[in-house]
Amino acid sequence: GQSFFLIAGPCAIEGEDMAFEIAGRVNAICERLEIPYIFKGSYRKANRSRIDSFTGIGDEKALGILKAVGEKFQIPVTTDIHSEPEAALAAQYVDVLQIPAFLCRQTSLLVAAAETGKVVNIKKGQFLSPDAMQFAADKVRGAGNERVLLTERGTTFGYQDLIVDFRGIPTMQSLGAPVVLDCTHSLQQPNQTSGVTGGRPAMISTIAKAGIAAGVDGLFIETHPTPSTAKSDGANMLPLDQLEPLLERLVNIRKAII
Amino acid sequence: GQSFFLIAGPCAIEGEDMAFEIAGRVNAICERLEIPYIFKGSYRKANRSRIDSFTGIGDEKALGILKAVGEKFQIPVTTDIHSEPEAALAAQYVDVLQIPAFLCRQTSLLVAAAETGKVVNIKKGQFLSPDAMQFAADKVRGAGNERVLLTERGTTFGYQDLIVDFRGIPTMQSLGAPVVLDCTHSLQQPNQTSGVTGGRPAMISTIAKAGIAAGVDGLFIETHPTPSTAKSDGANMLPLDQLEPLLERLVNIRKAII
Amino acid sequence: GQSFFLIAGPCAIEGEDMAFEIAGRVNAICERLEIPYIFKGSYRKANRSRIDSFTGIGDEKALGILKAVGEKFQIPVTTDIHSEPEAALAAQYVDVLQIPAFLCRQTSLLVAAAETGKVVNIKKGQFLSPDAMQFAADKVRGAGNERVLLTERGTTFGYQDLIVDFRGIPTMQSLGAPVVLDCTHSLQQPNQTSGVTGGRPAMISTIAKAGIAAGVDGLFIETHPTPSTAKSDGANMLPLDQLEPLLERLVNIRKAII
Amino acid sequence: GQSFFLIAGPCAIEGEDMAFEIAGRVNAICERLEIPYIFKGSYRKANRSRIDSFTGIGDEKALGILKAVGEKFQIPVTTDIHSEPEAALAAQYVDVLQIPAFLCRQTSLLVAAAETGKVVNIKKGQFLSPDAMQFAADKVRGAGNERVLLTERGTTFGYQDLIVDFRGIPTMQSLGAPVVLDCTHSLQQPNQTSGVTGGRPAMISTIAKAGIAAGVDGLFIETHPTPSTAKSDGANMLPLDQLEPLLERLVNIRKAII
Repeated sequence: GQSFFLIAGPCAIEGEDMAFEIAGRVNAICERLEIPYIFKGSYRKANRSRIDSFTGIGDEKALGILKAVGEKFQIPVTTDIHSEPEAALAAQYVDVLQIPAFLCRQTSLLVAAAETGKVVNIKKGQFLSPDAMQFAADKVRGAGNERVLLTERGTTFGYQDLIVDFRGIPTMQSLGAPVVLDCTHSLQQPNQTSGVTGGRPAMISTIAKAGIAAGVDGLFIETHPTPSTAKSDGANMLPLDQLEPLLERLVNIRKAII
Repeated sequence: GQSFFLIAGPCAIEGEDMAFEIAGRVNAICERLEIPYIFKGSYRKANRSRIDSFTGIGDEKALGILKAVGEKFQIPVTTDIHSEPEAALAAQYVDVLQIPAFLCRQTSLLVAAAETGKVVNIKKGQFLSPDAMQFAADKVRGAGNERVLLTERGTTFGYQDLIVDFRGIPTMQSLGAPVVLDCTHSLQQPNQTSGVTGGRPAMISTIAKAGIAAGVDGLFIETHPTPSTAKSDGANMLPLDQLEPLLERLVNIRKAII
Repeated sequence: GQSFFLIAGPCAIEGEDMAFEIAGRVNAICERLEIPYIFKGSYRKANRSRIDSFTGIGDEKALGILKAVGEKFQIPVTTDIHSEPEAALAAQYVDVLQIPAFLCRQTSLLVAAAETGKVVNIKKGQFLSPDAMQFAADKVRGAGNERVLLTERGTTFGYQDLIVDFRGIPTMQSLGAPVVLDCTHSLQQPNQTSGVTGGRPAMISTIAKAGIAAGVDGLFIETHPTPSTAKSDGANMLPLDQLEPLLERLVNIRKAII
Repeated sequence: GQSFFLIAGPCAIEGEDMAFEIAGRVNAICERLEIPYIFKGSYRKANRSRIDSFTGIGDEKALGILKAVGEKFQIPVTTDIHSEPEAALAAQYVDVLQIPAFLCRQTSLLVAAAETGKVVNIKKGQFLSPDAMQFAADKVRGAGNERVLLTERGTTFGYQDLIVDFRGIPTMQSLGAPVVLDCTHSLQQPNQTSGVTGGRPAMISTIAKAGIAAGVDGLFIETHPTPSTAKSDGANMLPLDQLEPLLERLVNIRKAII
């Protein structure tokens, strides 16, 4: 029985020390638990609610840190891209290109990502059905790239809430791609009056356990040593010291279903 | 570590032979797997979409069958009630009174059920939040009955679909009542043009596994030897011969989380 | 071109003076504007969120006030019923029996209402599609009563909001029944933490104007001289002195569409 | 009392003759009814469900046609843009830049559009609340451009439906921008199994009338002489010969509310 894989890291690359600390700690846990690990960090935040939100430390600097993390720990790394030119740029530094949920219908972005030959991880739009991800996957495959991941990250449920449809996991797997459950963004509570997305991090373990039991191939969890000090998305990141006991539990559930 | 319990049986009591066959087969499986078992069957269907739907074989006849099942197999039995007079009537035959989701806000029904002293299993309305079940539970407790179960059975998601919010499981448990996941009705697809509710029975195992991993106390599964010949809700009942392998898997997941 | 009709009054009958005051003031406005008027008041509140909410002043007393209002002003009156025995009881006092949205699938309640021969106004469940109201209407018609009204009162949209689907107005009209838009309950915000349903009364005129333009046959508006002192649903009632200018505007829109 | 304005034209610019025919016919109607008219046509379709959908006749060719239409009829013209470089390009040809709903959170696209000095019409994302459009508008204003329009085009309501929230009209107007109701895309039915978005064009007049009554500043209606032969979005365009009687009705409603 093979383990699920884990995509984890901070929301945004805030600096080298922090990236190496998180990657090192998560990598050690994953090695012990035999969980394949992909380090994640955004090098730029393009779609924040408010224009005065933190957007990054500089593209090439952040991408360079991602690459360095991959080399040091000998693990794949991933980041999200938002426009066609970013695809070729980011592909020089990372192994997996993540397409944001809002952009999962943008044909030219999907094709540009596909043409890099990197793995393309498409997040399901909050407005899209699991079935409809077929067309997104086909855009990548039609450009000659079969290495597609599909990520569930919640669906619009009224204005200020998202909900995870666990039926979507087998549905998207039936499209021929491994399916990832994004435990962080699935728990967002959008459209808050403040312009800062809220969250319910206490529910991360509930969602993650249900996802593993439902058979997901991978989990996505943003984590930070001290979420309250993070420059973006602090509301939903898992405190790093809670990651290991959660993963131990998840490994046990995985063993129970295979 | 103690097992989850199982509420299972046919949608409606169609006759004595069928009730005894289902109860006997499910009971044997549950004894082997050490799962506490509560036999379920509706003695009357009061809220069907269409007036020409099957509604029952006669109240006292169906209730008598429920009681006989309980006595023969020495297990608790349950049925749903729809009006105040039905509470006292059904309480003479069954151990657990189930309040239908559409009726979970009807104060006098909840109070009448509470006053029988039986366990009251309140299904969460498709229009209600998990938190708001506090007020339903309080109506039963306020009438002096602390024996409350809360059941998740899906929430309105557009007109023709229901969705299970797994965050609701810990939320409702925090209200001080054991929480049941109704794997059958959660998968209904209401408001179909035909006036016959549709379903997605292939998803029962996905939902059940996710529910156990999320920590539910009990599962509710309607089952029938041949669902396609059932007189109501055939679209969602689990074929009886699929129950045992599913429960085995669920017992393993349960062990992994406790 | 004939006017829309108006169903209006307080949420609950709190006493005789208040009922006569509201009915008298609304009736005078409606006579001047040539709007057929039906006085509305609940004689009992059966499905409040919390058990400690106000539930009424006594059934027969409140029903007697309804009847007296109808006789004094020579207008039809309406109230909502929640169980089969209430149908025959209320039918002795009122002209239109209203079926609450939560109960619109309860066959025996619909049949009991139908059998009184009174007009039956079925509110669309928050969980039901406009098309599916066909089956509710058919239950009344199947019991030999063709006098059916269908009322839109909003649909579940996430846990804490309702949304009005104006496509539902022509859809329900195509089922052969006049359609009413309930401007009060459509604006409820359910499942609030307090257990007291919230609302957005500032939106009443927006919803009412859109409804008239979309062709509704009738409007339902709860109104009170001083909503903040009302014993139930204060959050959504229209202050009585705002009713006349709103109706004038609506009469003009009605003339523009016919 | 001043009229609402109309943004209308074909979904995509399929050729010069068709663009001039539609613009000429709509313009004549609008001149007679004194409705300010903005011609609309997409020069490229970037976010189709399926990769084999029609995407355009060539960017500069289509943009040139848009400009020629504006010059011939002396009316403003508009198109939608999907990336930063498109903003400066399209701004050479059109007067209003439309930001697609899926992209309404993309900061750099909004800023690029703002910096052209053209009017920026931001469509509300299907996943966004009306209130949250404040942050989108602020991104444009923060870049020094006060000429913002906000367009309602429906909100996710289950997987296969959109719903218009008419409360959003006054809410978005309170953000200080004129509000447009997109009667075409509001009626889309996304995520159909075919990968071709469905629609309910019979509902266009219902939605448009309700919108005018609710006080929208402008309407957006895609129209085509023969929708069934259109190369994209045929499912929702209004047949051109139905436009004039609809607009006459809408002008009357407008007069009734001001």
